[in-house]
Amino acid sequence: MKAVVYKGPFSVAVEDVPDPEIKHPNDVIVKVTSTCICGSDLHMYEGRTAAEPGIIFGHENMGIIQEVGSAVKERKVGDRVVMPFNVGCGFCKNCQRGYTGFCVTVNPGFAGGAYGYVAMGPWRGGQAEYLQVPFADFNCLPLPAGTENEANYALLADIFPTGYHGAELADVSPGESVAVFGAGPVGLMAAYSCVIRGAAEIYVIDHVKERLDKAGEIGGIPINFDDGDPVQVIRDMRGGDGVDKTIDAVGYQAAARGSSAAGGQQTEVPNIVLNQMIDVINPTGIMGIPGLYVPSDPGGVDENAKRGALTLNFGRLFEKGLSLGTGQCNVKRYNAYLRDLITVGKANPSFVVSHEVPLGDAVDAYDKFDKRVDGYTKVILNP
Amino acid sequence: MKAVVYKGPFSVAVEDVPDPEIKHPNDVIVKVTSTCICGSDLHMYEGRTAAEPGIIFGHENMGIIQEVGSAVKERKVGDRVVMPFNVGCGFCKNCQRGYTGFCVTVNPGFAGGAYGYVAMGPWRGGQAEYLQVPFADFNCLPLPAGTENEANYALLADIFPTGYHGAELADVSPGESVAVFGAGPVGLMAAYSCVIRGAAEIYVIDHVKERLDKAGEIGGIPINFDDGDPVQVIRDMRGGDGVDKTIDAVGYQAAARGSSAAGGQQTEVPNIVLNQMIDVINPTGIMGIPGLYVPSDPGGVDENAKRGALTLNFGRLFEKGLSLGTGQCNVKRYNAYLRDLITVGKANPSFVVSHEVPLGDAVDAYDKFDKRVDGYTKVILNP
Amino acid sequence: MKAVVYKGPFSVAVEDVPDPEIKHPNDVIVKVTSTCICGSDLHMYEGRTAAEPGIIFGHENMGIIQEVGSAVKERKVGDRVVMPFNVGCGFCKNCQRGYTGFCVTVNPGFAGGAYGYVAMGPWRGGQAEYLQVPFADFNCLPLPAGTENEANYALLADIFPTGYHGAELADVSPGESVAVFGAGPVGLMAAYSCVIRGAAEIYVIDHVKERLDKAGEIGGIPINFDDGDPVQVIRDMRGGDGVDKTIDAVGYQAAARGSSAAGGQQTEVPNIVLNQMIDVINPTGIMGIPGLYVPSDPGGVDENAKRGALTLNFGRLFEKGLSLGTGQCNVKRYNAYLRDLITVGKANPSFVVSHEVPLGDAVDAYDKFDKRVDGYTKVILNP
Amino acid sequence: MKAVVYKGPFSVAVEDVPDPEIKHPNDVIVKVTSTCICGSDLHMYEGRTAAEPGIIFGHENMGIIQEVGSAVKERKVGDRVVMPFNVGCGFCKNCQRGYTGFCVTVNPGFAGGAYGYVAMGPWRGGQAEYLQVPFADFNCLPLPAGTENEANYALLADIFPTGYHGAELADVSPGESVAVFGAGPVGLMAAYSCVIRGAAEIYVIDHVKERLDKAGEIGGIPINFDDGDPVQVIRDMRGGDGVDKTIDAVGYQAAARGSSAAGGQQTEVPNIVLNQMIDVINPTGIMGIPGLYVPSDPGGVDENAKRGALTLNFGRLFEKGLSLGTGQCNVKRYNAYLRDLITVGKANPSFVVSHEVPLGDAVDAYDKFDKRVDGYTKVILNP
Repeated sequence: MKAVVYKGPFSVAVEDVPDPEIKHPNDVIVKVTSTCICGSDLHMYEGRTAAEPGIIFGHENMGIIQEVGSAVKERKVGDRVVMPFNVGCGFCKNCQRGYTGFCVTVNPGFAGGAYGYVAMGPWRGGQAEYLQVPFADFNCLPLPAGTENEANYALLADIFPTGYHGAELADVSPGESVAVFGAGPVGLMAAYSCVIRGAAEIYVIDHVKERLDKAGEIGGIPINFDDGDPVQVIRDMRGGDGVDKTIDAVGYQAAARGSSAAGGQQTEVPNIVLNQMIDVINPTGIMGIPGLYVPSDPGGVDENAKRGALTLNFGRLFEKGLSLGTGQCNVKRYNAYLRDLITVGKANPSFVVSHEVPLGDAVDAYDKFDKRVDGYTKVILNP
Repeated sequence: MKAVVYKGPFSVAVEDVPDPEIKHPNDVIVKVTSTCICGSDLHMYEGRTAAEPGIIFGHENMGIIQEVGSAVKERKVGDRVVMPFNVGCGFCKNCQRGYTGFCVTVNPGFAGGAYGYVAMGPWRGGQAEYLQVPFADFNCLPLPAGTENEANYALLADIFPTGYHGAELADVSPGESVAVFGAGPVGLMAAYSCVIRGAAEIYVIDHVKERLDKAGEIGGIPINFDDGDPVQVIRDMRGGDGVDKTIDAVGYQAAARGSSAAGGQQTEVPNIVLNQMIDVINPTGIMGIPGLYVPSDPGGVDENAKRGALTLNFGRLFEKGLSLGTGQCNVKRYNAYLRDLITVGKANPSFVVSHEVPLGDAVDAYDKFDKRVDGYTKVILNP
Repeated sequence: MKAVVYKGPFSVAVEDVPDPEIKHPNDVIVKVTSTCICGSDLHMYEGRTAAEPGIIFGHENMGIIQEVGSAVKERKVGDRVVMPFNVGCGFCKNCQRGYTGFCVTVNPGFAGGAYGYVAMGPWRGGQAEYLQVPFADFNCLPLPAGTENEANYALLADIFPTGYHGAELADVSPGESVAVFGAGPVGLMAAYSCVIRGAAEIYVIDHVKERLDKAGEIGGIPINFDDGDPVQVIRDMRGGDGVDKTIDAVGYQAAARGSSAAGGQQTEVPNIVLNQMIDVINPTGIMGIPGLYVPSDPGGVDENAKRGALTLNFGRLFEKGLSLGTGQCNVKRYNAYLRDLITVGKANPSFVVSHEVPLGDAVDAYDKFDKRVDGYTKVILNP
Repeated sequence: MKAVVYKGPFSVAVEDVPDPEIKHPNDVIVKVTSTCICGSDLHMYEGRTAAEPGIIFGHENMGIIQEVGSAVKERKVGDRVVMPFNVGCGFCKNCQRGYTGFCVTVNPGFAGGAYGYVAMGPWRGGQAEYLQVPFADFNCLPLPAGTENEANYALLADIFPTGYHGAELADVSPGESVAVFGAGPVGLMAAYSCVIRGAAEIYVIDHVKERLDKAGEIGGIPINFDDGDPVQVIRDMRGGDGVDKTIDAVGYQAAARGSSAAGGQQTEVPNIVLNQMIDVINPTGIMGIPGLYVPSDPGGVDENAKRGALTLNFGRLFEKGLSLGTGQCNVKRYNAYLRDLITVGKANPSFVVSHEVPLGDAVDAYDKFDKRVDGYTKVILNP
């Protein structure tokens, strides 16, 4: 079959690889219909991880079940399904408590597995024609048959639940004010989730005009941090008051103010968003942090950044009595509910999708997405 | 009346000061029967804060109501009461949600007030014969009449609830494993609260033998960090596994390993406990942080420490999907329940009290408590 | 001043009564600008309670502060405010935990007080020109100055929070399916609150066409129980499945199917809604019950009903592992958040208001509202 | 193999039956070492259910894994394990949210399955030498190897978690007062769980002296309801106050006061405990109801009882703003934590076990347990 294979920094290829097979009685094989390129794929693509050439990319996968292992109970050939990017077993101490992003079964020696990602276990990615899915009864979310809502449902694999996870970690509730840092795909999904959860005011901070425009269209209040300190801007808009909750949808590659205005490489300040969140939030607030931070970053801006150490204004955080929650999204905790919102027409997350292209165009898509040219913000590959 | 007055670094005096008066219809005047010296009083005593001479110390106060303002509804002259160290109004946006440690009424421009503490509002301390208590219906916790359990109840003003707050922030639940860092009075109260909440294993980390002995006596597992890396020691005891929850009862003046063994000044490493907690906790865990961190520390070990900035292994924290909660204790959320445990004899927190002395001996008590000599670990003054 | 005074069953009058006065230093006097007639006022009006003639009605009150007691701290003359229908003290064991509908201070011997209601304490109602408000710092919710959103804010006194309370008791969460029984003002507010909270499907059951139309307009799915068993209708629409959550916004005066079709008196079946909720909900579901049930109903249909005893299918409830929450709304827990949603334009609850009339027209308004003629569904009086 | 087979009302036999076999790749076969007789087995034994002769009894099972299906991942031959009485799949909408007592996979058409119980699916009971366990990775809780704590661990299958579930449904928290109705094995486990959770006062109501004595030994306050109305007795002991929380560990076969004193058949009053709980609890309280109520009881005392309909003082319940939770215990949510408490010696639930006898003595044990003679209160069979 054809698959997107990592060849080295800034290089992928669409190549022939062996078809996946049922290796365990609880497996199914899915014929992939939609598979997204994720911002976190670019971490590998740019050589900012330990990924070795040969990895098949793709952790945001959706398709039709093609073959079913002998122990699978509920899933059938022909089922239309979407899989969480996390691979879970369903029975370990973390999965059974709903922490399916921290499964201790599927990636021995580590808590958490995923398809097609460095250090996340032996699972091949789904940017390919077919995908092996383990523990299929647990990992396959069934979808209404047909082809409707294909792009909407495809986002259930990762970014819609991941954005929602930010709102859940911050316990965003009706009537609250929230500041969402970052208006990339995850940030927009976080802001959109705050809308769904009934927040009163949703400030969205970024410095890319197109992203901020989208934030405004879904009901957010766009704040361009190149135009001024976002903490001060928000406080000025609120008569000096801060916000109830904050969400970090940026992570460790946070850009300094004005750093992309020059058109060149952006200047990273890994702790800038976290410290701004501490500043802009009111005492007793909660900070949800779905944005990625890593314990090892070969491309980090300094020695601390390289080992994932950040300098935080912890005295201020304590003085305010803040709480925070972090970590990759436990997709299975949310995906059925978000699916149902899509099915009845109350959620349409695919507004973030900029391009849908054939699998064969993956090389071009990676290149443009990485450079953020031609409006590439979120790409779905259709094998 | 007599009161303990701050004169400057390492100096207090017991002096005559004017008696407090009813200034507002919701006030009462309490004749103080017990008032504790707190570890956080030593921050002022040692000159590690912006405290100016003249402050009357004392935020852990208990006594008998002597006089009642005209608007007070439920409290009567003669009531035996203990007051949370936090002063709250009961009606602001934080008090009404139970965040009584972050009252925005009693200390204008700041969230949180306390008796006898720098920057915590205009409230005089209770290391004195009498104390003015505002919003008395809200701030006075009634106690059974008489003199029984005097020392136990006195600890309801601060350290028993504060230790309990650590367990609550970490959501310590029956059957869990916990690591409590610090076996000073708050750490012992945190460990004791974990016992009350039914934790299965409670590791308590310190390097003072007497404290560790007490931790063992109440059912904890003492770990001396001068004898080895506590993270490794705990993992070794658990077959490589970490713990479910951690509590930081140390705060920003954390000592380096072996630093007090030389008998001299201890070496501070302000981020050591937080990073050890990140290391020893299992993925999906929760860290409760009642230990004090401040946004400004004139005596900090370096420029970052002076402004309350700590370098944390945030990449690891994120990878593990950890959550954390911080801040001073909202005493009123817990004190009635803890009082009832004392009254029925199921809690006896006064095992941490080392000395009860007359108010007149306060100068000597501060000196010895600060030097940790003669077994001074927790002192109650009896005016 | 003028006030609406209860004269006996089916009789009220607008009469001159003495102006209210500051009786306690924590009181304020409010000049009433809007005050609603509530469905629960009709319980008294119809003689279905122990109410004696002479009561001044009105627990849904809003206005401008006219005079301030000496102990009041934050509220000022001229503040525009709305008061929860519950009177709370802010410091009793229930108020401090957020159960402000169960205050044990304001109505001695009972948990819960209200303005202008039988057995709810000594507090006069606000269907009048002026209102005494006790514990004013606690009970007055400040509103933006001016006259904007007058009807929307007026509903913060009771029915908007009460409907929201139903959704909160049932823990209605994004993506869930809900059945709301009753599309009167509270039922519509409950359904509207489910919309705000992101529910996927909101079935609304009633048999009054106008109400069902409104439910449909805000995004609900109207079910007319005169047209068929609502349990079966909902299950048929869901392929046999039930719903995640249910809300009872009907209470003890529930009507039998078709009972009002004849135009005459409706036949009451007090347990019909509760048992239908047990039938239509899925195992592990939660039932929110803001609809009023009373321990004594002189007009009850049988001996059990007269003493508030209902026969429930408890074996089925247990088999499904259901939970339920009941009780009058703790308005203060929600009103600031709902106010903010109104202020930013994200909530417009006043779509339920059918009439706004001068205080002088109260007699006519009570008559028509009780008979549900001329479209009277929710009336605001403007003194 | 030998197994306990139901022959008809008041009749079981130990008979030869075919050995169980691996029927599905996720199965294991367990060699049973301990299997308890449960009070709910007596429902079948007494003919109070639709159970047909031929059922192999036994849902509280523990043993050593003898054979492992091809898809089983973590469990190995030789593992010592205890199984929740509920059979769960681990991946259905209820199991994945922790409601493992309401699995929709293992008992088609119903939410919930169990071993050896009428209407709970095709799963044979474990009062036998061997047991087939489906979805073994999910259903087997591993235990420390060896034979230590055999009786303690055996109680993890049902009654220790079921009692704990009562405390969890009522959210029993440190410092609270609780009334536990029933001091049979589940009631004692509920009271014991309240001790573990740090409750201040635990009233335990029953009328069997031996049970009340045990309740007193573990720290409860025994109340004999034959000696007086337990509601009044508790209120008298508390100066008129009620309790924060209540637990119903009795269920539908509740006995009237004094009904067993005559030595004969007890008089059942199915709603007596629920209404007493409504009376004795304080406003805003929570009632946990693990005690069994059934939708169909052939032996019910009247027509309502036969169909599981109970008359409750719902008006009072509403007036107090009470909440309640019901249903069979989701054992897997608690069993690992309770196991750890046993392993470290902090929980010893086996104080409720009165007899341990060979499987061959089951006929005699059922007879005596049903008659409550010779001190039979909780029996473990050792095959």
